[in-house]
Amino acid sequence: MDPLALDTAIRSFLREDIGFGDLTTEAIFPPDQAGEAAFVAKDTFLAAGLEVAARVFQLRNADVSVLKLAPDGTRAAPGDVLLEVVGPVADLLQAERVALNLAQRLCGIATLTDRFVERVRPLPVRIVDTRKTTPGLRVLEKYAVRAGGGHNHRFGLADGILIKDNHIAACGSIAEAVRRVRARAPHTLKVEVEAATLAQVEECLGCQVEIIMLDNMTPAAMREAVALVAGRALVEASGGITLANVREAAEAGVDLISVGALTHSAPACDISMRLG
Amino acid sequence: MDPLALDTAIRSFLREDIGFGDLTTEAIFPPDQAGEAAFVAKDTFLAAGLEVAARVFQLRNADVSVLKLAPDGTRAAPGDVLLEVVGPVADLLQAERVALNLAQRLCGIATLTDRFVERVRPLPVRIVDTRKTTPGLRVLEKYAVRAGGGHNHRFGLADGILIKDNHIAACGSIAEAVRRVRARAPHTLKVEVEAATLAQVEECLGCQVEIIMLDNMTPAAMREAVALVAGRALVEASGGITLANVREAAEAGVDLISVGALTHSAPACDISMRLG
Amino acid sequence: MDPLALDTAIRSFLREDIGFGDLTTEAIFPPDQAGEAAFVAKDTFLAAGLEVAARVFQLRNADVSVLKLAPDGTRAAPGDVLLEVVGPVADLLQAERVALNLAQRLCGIATLTDRFVERVRPLPVRIVDTRKTTPGLRVLEKYAVRAGGGHNHRFGLADGILIKDNHIAACGSIAEAVRRVRARAPHTLKVEVEAATLAQVEECLGCQVEIIMLDNMTPAAMREAVALVAGRALVEASGGITLANVREAAEAGVDLISVGALTHSAPACDISMRLG
Amino acid sequence: MDPLALDTAIRSFLREDIGFGDLTTEAIFPPDQAGEAAFVAKDTFLAAGLEVAARVFQLRNADVSVLKLAPDGTRAAPGDVLLEVVGPVADLLQAERVALNLAQRLCGIATLTDRFVERVRPLPVRIVDTRKTTPGLRVLEKYAVRAGGGHNHRFGLADGILIKDNHIAACGSIAEAVRRVRARAPHTLKVEVEAATLAQVEECLGCQVEIIMLDNMTPAAMREAVALVAGRALVEASGGITLANVREAAEAGVDLISVGALTHSAPACDISMRLG
Amino acid sequence: MDPLALDTAIRSFLREDIGFGDLTTEAIFPPDQAGEAAFVAKDTFLAAGLEVAARVFQLRNADVSVLKLAPDGTRAAPGDVLLEVVGPVADLLQAERVALNLAQRLCGIATLTDRFVERVRPLPVRIVDTRKTTPGLRVLEKYAVRAGGGHNHRFGLADGILIKDNHIAACGSIAEAVRRVRARAPHTLKVEVEAATLAQVEECLGCQVEIIMLDNMTPAAMREAVALVAGRALVEASGGITLANVREAAEAGVDLISVGALTHSAPACDISMRLG
Amino acid sequence: MDPLALDTAIRSFLREDIGFGDLTTEAIFPPDQAGEAAFVAKDTFLAAGLEVAARVFQLRNADVSVLKLAPDGTRAAPGDVLLEVVGPVADLLQAERVALNLAQRLCGIATLTDRFVERVRPLPVRIVDTRKTTPGLRVLEKYAVRAGGGHNHRFGLADGILIKDNHIAACGSIAEAVRRVRARAPHTLKVEVEAATLAQVEECLGCQVEIIMLDNMTPAAMREAVALVAGRALVEASGGITLANVREAAEAGVDLISVGALTHSAPACDISMRLG
Repeated sequence: MDPLALDTAIRSFLREDIGFGDLTTEAIFPPDQAGEAAFVAKDTFLAAGLEVAARVFQLRNADVSVLKLAPDGTRAAPGDVLLEVVGPVADLLQAERVALNLAQRLCGIATLTDRFVERVRPLPVRIVDTRKTTPGLRVLEKYAVRAGGGHNHRFGLADGILIKDNHIAACGSIAEAVRRVRARAPHTLKVEVEAATLAQVEECLGCQVEIIMLDNMTPAAMREAVALVAGRALVEASGGITLANVREAAEAGVDLISVGALTHSAPACDISMRLG
Repeated sequence: MDPLALDTAIRSFLREDIGFGDLTTEAIFPPDQAGEAAFVAKDTFLAAGLEVAARVFQLRNADVSVLKLAPDGTRAAPGDVLLEVVGPVADLLQAERVALNLAQRLCGIATLTDRFVERVRPLPVRIVDTRKTTPGLRVLEKYAVRAGGGHNHRFGLADGILIKDNHIAACGSIAEAVRRVRARAPHTLKVEVEAATLAQVEECLGCQVEIIMLDNMTPAAMREAVALVAGRALVEASGGITLANVREAAEAGVDLISVGALTHSAPACDISMRLG
Repeated sequence: MDPLALDTAIRSFLREDIGFGDLTTEAIFPPDQAGEAAFVAKDTFLAAGLEVAARVFQLRNADVSVLKLAPDGTRAAPGDVLLEVVGPVADLLQAERVALNLAQRLCGIATLTDRFVERVRPLPVRIVDTRKTTPGLRVLEKYAVRAGGGHNHRFGLADGILIKDNHIAACGSIAEAVRRVRARAPHTLKVEVEAATLAQVEECLGCQVEIIMLDNMTPAAMREAVALVAGRALVEASGGITLANVREAAEAGVDLISVGALTHSAPACDISMRLG
Repeated sequence: MDPLALDTAIRSFLREDIGFGDLTTEAIFPPDQAGEAAFVAKDTFLAAGLEVAARVFQLRNADVSVLKLAPDGTRAAPGDVLLEVVGPVADLLQAERVALNLAQRLCGIATLTDRFVERVRPLPVRIVDTRKTTPGLRVLEKYAVRAGGGHNHRFGLADGILIKDNHIAACGSIAEAVRRVRARAPHTLKVEVEAATLAQVEECLGCQVEIIMLDNMTPAAMREAVALVAGRALVEASGGITLANVREAAEAGVDLISVGALTHSAPACDISMRLG
Repeated sequence: MDPLALDTAIRSFLREDIGFGDLTTEAIFPPDQAGEAAFVAKDTFLAAGLEVAARVFQLRNADVSVLKLAPDGTRAAPGDVLLEVVGPVADLLQAERVALNLAQRLCGIATLTDRFVERVRPLPVRIVDTRKTTPGLRVLEKYAVRAGGGHNHRFGLADGILIKDNHIAACGSIAEAVRRVRARAPHTLKVEVEAATLAQVEECLGCQVEIIMLDNMTPAAMREAVALVAGRALVEASGGITLANVREAAEAGVDLISVGALTHSAPACDISMRLG
Repeated sequence: MDPLALDTAIRSFLREDIGFGDLTTEAIFPPDQAGEAAFVAKDTFLAAGLEVAARVFQLRNADVSVLKLAPDGTRAAPGDVLLEVVGPVADLLQAERVALNLAQRLCGIATLTDRFVERVRPLPVRIVDTRKTTPGLRVLEKYAVRAGGGHNHRFGLADGILIKDNHIAACGSIAEAVRRVRARAPHTLKVEVEAATLAQVEECLGCQVEIIMLDNMTPAAMREAVALVAGRALVEASGGITLANVREAAEAGVDLISVGALTHSAPACDISMRLG
C-alpha cells in the first residue's frame, strides 16, 4: 500500500469522525494518561488490514506504539487478540471507531474472498475483484482481496483496457474497436473484450484479443467458449457469480472469475476494542 | 447534504476510478458524441441517493442534464428506470461506475433500514444509526438511513455526548463522569450514558442523564429498565440488534434502537446502466 | 484541540506569511545556527493558547524544542515570559509572526472572556460564545473562550438546533417549527428557540423546548421570562450584552449569556518575541 | 483580490460553519423556496468587502443573484442596505453567518483605517498596515486597509526586505546585513532597515538603504531623523502608534506610519441580515 | 485529458504565478475592461496543447471566450495565430504567463516527438515516451507526445510491469522475478523485462515475457535480438537514442523505441501573446 | 526553500509516479530489505538540488538516511557520486525516478546559468531569471538559478512591479502608468518599466522609475540607453539573449540581463542511480 495516500485518507477519516473534538473524552481523560488497547475478535474470520488499523492510532498520536499485530491471513477465532497498542488513552478512544470500521470491513472482504477461493480449490483459476468497490477505499479493498487469496483485476479505467458492449456497438465491430484502442493505448496493456456469445468469442480470437470476458454465460456456454479459445487467450467469467455457482464456473475451465460481491456486499466482521 | 463537501468527495471518487484517463473510451468515442443513459433496477428495493448519482455525472461534465430522477423512498421493482441523464457518451461511461457504486450502496442502506422500520411499526420507537459507517461516506450513509425511514444518532464525537464504560471506569462513577462532561460541554447537547445494569440505570437517573443507552441487555432487562426510567430519560437499546430480534426490543418500550448493521453490513442493491 | 486540523491550519498560516521564502533571514542566517526565543508579555492579561504558538514553531521545524510554556489561565504581567523555545534561529524568526498573531488573539479573547466572567461572579450563569468568530479560527477561538472561563455554545449549524424568527415565520408557529425539527434532528440535541416576547416564551414552554433564547430583551423582561419558565427550560440572554450591562442580565436569573464580542471584537494582547 | 484563492478560502469557511449540514434550516425550508436577504447597517461606518460577502452566498449556491452591492468606501448609516441577494432561502440562511462575519470584520478594518487616515489629512504621509493580520485572512484584511484609504506594506516575508535588530546583531553591523541581503535578494525590492537610534539612521544612509523604519521613536526623535535623512530614503514610523498620537508622528515629517492595530484590534462593525 | 485533474493543476499554477494579486495590472486596468488576446507563433513548430492554454484563461475568469484554437498537430509558422480569446483584459494579462509557459512546453515536446517520428517513417516502429517527465506535468507531457505522433509507455509504476536489473539481481534469475510478479500483478498487464545481453533475451523468451527491453544495445546487437525473438515478444530499444541514431535502431527491426529526451530536454517553442 | 511547500510538492510528485503502488517492486522486494543507492554523474555539469532529491527519498520513507550529499555548486564529472542514501530497497526504487527527474532538471538549470555567468565574468552585471518557469516548479527552478550563480527577478506578479507595453498603452503614457501603480503598490517595491526606445527610456527617467527594462534592443541601442540613464536607474537587458550574444549585452553596461532560456529550455543533466 502506498503510505502517502493511505495517511492522507486516514487523516480525513479521523477528521470525519472527530470533527472539532471528542467532547466526552476530552472532558474526562487528561491528554497524557497512558493505556493499552486490544482488538479482540468476536467471531471466526480471516484477518486482514490490522496494519491499517494500527496506522490510524499512530496518525492520531505519533506516540502510540504497536505491541502486537496479527499478519494478514491469520485465521481468527472469538477471543483472539489481533492488535495491541499502547499510548494516551484519549487518543486510543478517539481513533477507536475509525480503526475498527476499517479493520471490520477489510476482514470482511478478506473473509468473503477466502470463501470463494476455498470453493474453487485446487482448480487453476483466479478469483478476481472488480471496480465495484467503496468510493474512496479502492486501494484498501483490493488489498484485502489479495489478503484473502484473491487477485486484482485492473485498478481503474487508466490501467487496463476493457472493451464492453457499448464500445463495440459504437464501433460497429469488435475488430474496429480493438483496432482503435490498440492505436492509442500503451503497448504494455493487454486488450480485454466482453463477449456475450460464442460468435463474439470467435471475433475476439480473430483479432488476437488477449483476454476474453464471458458476460453472464451459463456454465455450458463457458465450457464451449473455453474449448473454442483453446489457450489462445485468457478467459474470464463474469456476472452473477455466487458462492453457490462459483465452483461450476471454475470447472468450466475459465482462467479467471470476477466477483463484484467481494467488495460491494461483504458483511463486516465483528471486532471490539478492549481498553486495559 | 452539504453541496460543497459532497462535490469534493465525488471529485475524489472520480479521480480514484478514472486516474489519468479512460484508455478504452477515449480511444473509441469522440468527446462530443452525445447519448442517454438510464439506471435500471434489477431487483426490488427502496431507492435513495439517486440525486448523488446524478451529481457524479454532472461533476464529470457540466453539460450532462438530468431527465428523470426517482425521489428518495421510491419502491423500485426490476426494470424500473431510476435515473435518466443525457450528455457526452464518453463522460456517461466514465462516470458510470462511481455513480453506480454510490447508488447501489445508498439504496442498500435505505432498503435495510426500511426493513427494520417495517418490523417495529407502529410502535413509538426510532431506528437509529451509529458511527459504524464507511470511512469517508458518513454523511451519505446517514442520509440513506433517513431516506429509509430511520433516524440519525450523533454524527461523530463532536456533536454528541456518549459516556461509555471506559469513561465511567476512569472517573470512578457515572455521577463524576457526568459532572466532568457537563462542566465542559455545550449546554445544547443532551448527555447520554451507557448502562449495562439496572443499578447503572438508576445511577444515571440520579444525575439527570437525558439519554440512557442499554448496552446489550435482554428484552426482559430492557423492559425493567424502561419501567424504572418511567419517562425521566430517553432509553436507547444498543448491541446485537437484528431483524430477528428488533421487534422484541421495540416491544420492551425503548424510545430508540441503534443498529450498526444498517451501515456496516447492508448488501448493495442491483442496478445497471443502460446506454441508449 | 484536534491536532490534525490544527496542524493543517498552522501550515497554511505559515505559507501565507512566508510564501516562497523569507528573503531577509535566509540571506543572513545559516540554516543551522541555533538560538533561543522568548515570548514576553508587554501588558497585563490572561494567557491562553501558548501551546498553539509553540506548535507553530515546531511545524516550521521539528527540531525546535519547547523549554517553557505558560498554562492557559496564567495571569500575565509586563515582563513575564510566557513561552521559551530553542532551535534554528532562522526558523524561529520565520515562525515568529504567525505564532505571535495567534497568541495575541487568543490571549485577547481569553482576557475579554475573563472580564465578563468576573463581572457575573458568583452568580450561577454561564458566559457563552457565539458563531461570530473569525472565519477559519473557530476551533481556536472557542478554545480561548473556555480558557477564559467562558463556555461554548454550539460549534456550528450541524451540532445544535436554534430556531430563529425566520424559521418560525416560515412555519407559522413555534410549535410547528419545533415539530419539524424534532422529526428530523438527532435525539441527542436539545432544541433551542429564539423568543422575542413573553408570549413566545410561553409558546416555547408549550412544546417542551429545552432552551429558550431571549432575544434583545430588557433586564426587566428577562426577569419576567425567567419567572415564567420557572426551571422548565434553560434560559439564554442574547443580543447587545456588554461589560456594562452583563451583570444586570445575570441578575435577571438567566442560565446563559451569549456574547458575540468575545470573539469578534476582542483587542489583541501585547506580546513580543525576544531572541537570546 | 485573487478570485481563485478567495473562493477556496470561502469554501473552507462555509465548511467550518455548516459542517455536515444545517439541522434547523434543512428541517424547515424546502431546498427550492426562494427569498431575498438584505444586509442592513446598524451603526455608522465605512463599508468594505461587501463583494466578498456576496461571493459567500454565490459559492453556497450558484443560483443566488446579487441585486445591490454597496461599493467599497460607502459611508454607511444605521438602516442603510449594503447588500441585497435573492435565492433559495435555505442557502441564504446557511451562508448568512460567514458572510456577516467577513463583512463585519472588513468594515471594521476599513473604518479604523479611515479614522487614522482622517487624523493625518492632508499631510503627505501614508498609513500602512503590518503583518499583524488574522492568520488566514491577510489578503482580505490588507484589501480592507486599502478600502479605508490606507496603503499596504509588504504582504509577507517573501515580497519585501526588512532588516531588524536581530538580523543586524547577527551580522555585526547594518552595512554587513545590507550587503548580505543585496547579494541574494531580487533587485526589484527596496531594502528596509529598522533603526532605533539616530546613529543607526546614519548607518543606514551610509549604505543607501531605501527605507528606514524608525522603531518606537518619540516624535522629537522622528523629527531629527527626518531632517537627517533629508529625502535620501523613505522614512517609516513604527511602534505604539494610536489614534491619539498618529497626528504628531505625521507632523514629524515621516513618509509612512505603520499601524498594527488596523488589523489586529479593529472592532467588528454591526450589520444584520434581514430576510424578506 | 482528465478535466478534473487538469483544472486542479492549472489552478495551482495560476496561484504560483499570481500569488495574492497582480500589483501592476490591478493598478492599471479596471476589472471589467474587455479585450482580445492572440497567441502568435514566432517560429516553426508542431502545435499541441492550445486547449490547455485556453483552459488557463477560462479558469482565471469564466467569462473568457475562445474564438479560435489551433488543433493539436497543426504545423505552425512564424506569425500564425494559434489561439484567440476575448474577455477582461486584466484576466488575460494575469493568465498570460501560465498559459504561455504550458503551451510553449507542450509544443516543444510535440515538435521534438514529431522529429523522431519523421526520422523513422515509414518503418513499423513506435516512438514511445518514458517516466522522465517533469514532476507534476506527466499527464500533459504524455499528451503532447501523442500529439506529436508518438505513443505512451506506462504512465507510472502502477500501470505497467518493468523488471529491471536490480529486480533480477534480487531474485537470482529472470525466471524467478517473472514468477513473483505474475503471482501478484493483475492479469491485464503484460510483463516487460530489461535485457542487457542476448543470453538475457533468451532467458526472457523461456518464460514467455511479453515485452523485452533491450538496454543500451548497439544496432548490431539489437538486430540479433530481434532475430532471436522472432515475433514471440515485443522488442523495445532503450537508452541513448538520439535523432542521430534513431533511424539505425528502427532499422534493426525493434517494435518500440523509447526516448527520455522527448520530455526531459525538449526546448520550449517560441510563442508570444498579442493584446488587441 | 520553504520546507512545507517543498514537502507538499514532493508528495504530489511521488503520487503521480507511484499511483496506487509499484507493482513490480512490491512483488519482488520485501518491505524491510535494506540497501544503498548512489546518484552517479554521467556527464560534466554543475550540481544543484541534491538536497531536494534526498528529501524525495525521505518523504517516501522516513527511515532513509543520507550518507553523502554534494553541495550546490559542486562541479561534477562522469563517475562522481553526488548523493548516497540507505534505507529499504523498495522505497529507494520507488522514489528513484522522481528524485532523478528533479535532480537532472535542477542541475540542468544551474549548469546553463553557470555558462551564462561565466560568459559575462568579470563584468558587473547580474544574470537573472524570468517567470518562464515550469508550472509548479518555480521555487525550485529559481533556487537552481541562484545555485548556478545567477540571480532571481521577481517571483511572480505579486512581488514586483513591471509595467509593460500593454499597460503603457492602456494609460496613454508611462508617466500615467507609473502614477497609477505608485498610488496602489507597496512602497517596498521598486517600479520597473519596459522601454522599447530611447524616447521611452527618457520618459522613464522623467518619472523616477527605479528599473528600466530594455526590450529587445541591439547592443548599440543598449549602450546609448545606459549612457542616457547614467546611473539614475538600474538597467535590464531583456529579450533574445543567448550564450552567443550575452557578452555583448554585458559589455553595453547594463546592470541586469534576464534570460528566459535558463528555465524554459535547459536540457536535463545525465545522472543515474546505482543500487549497492
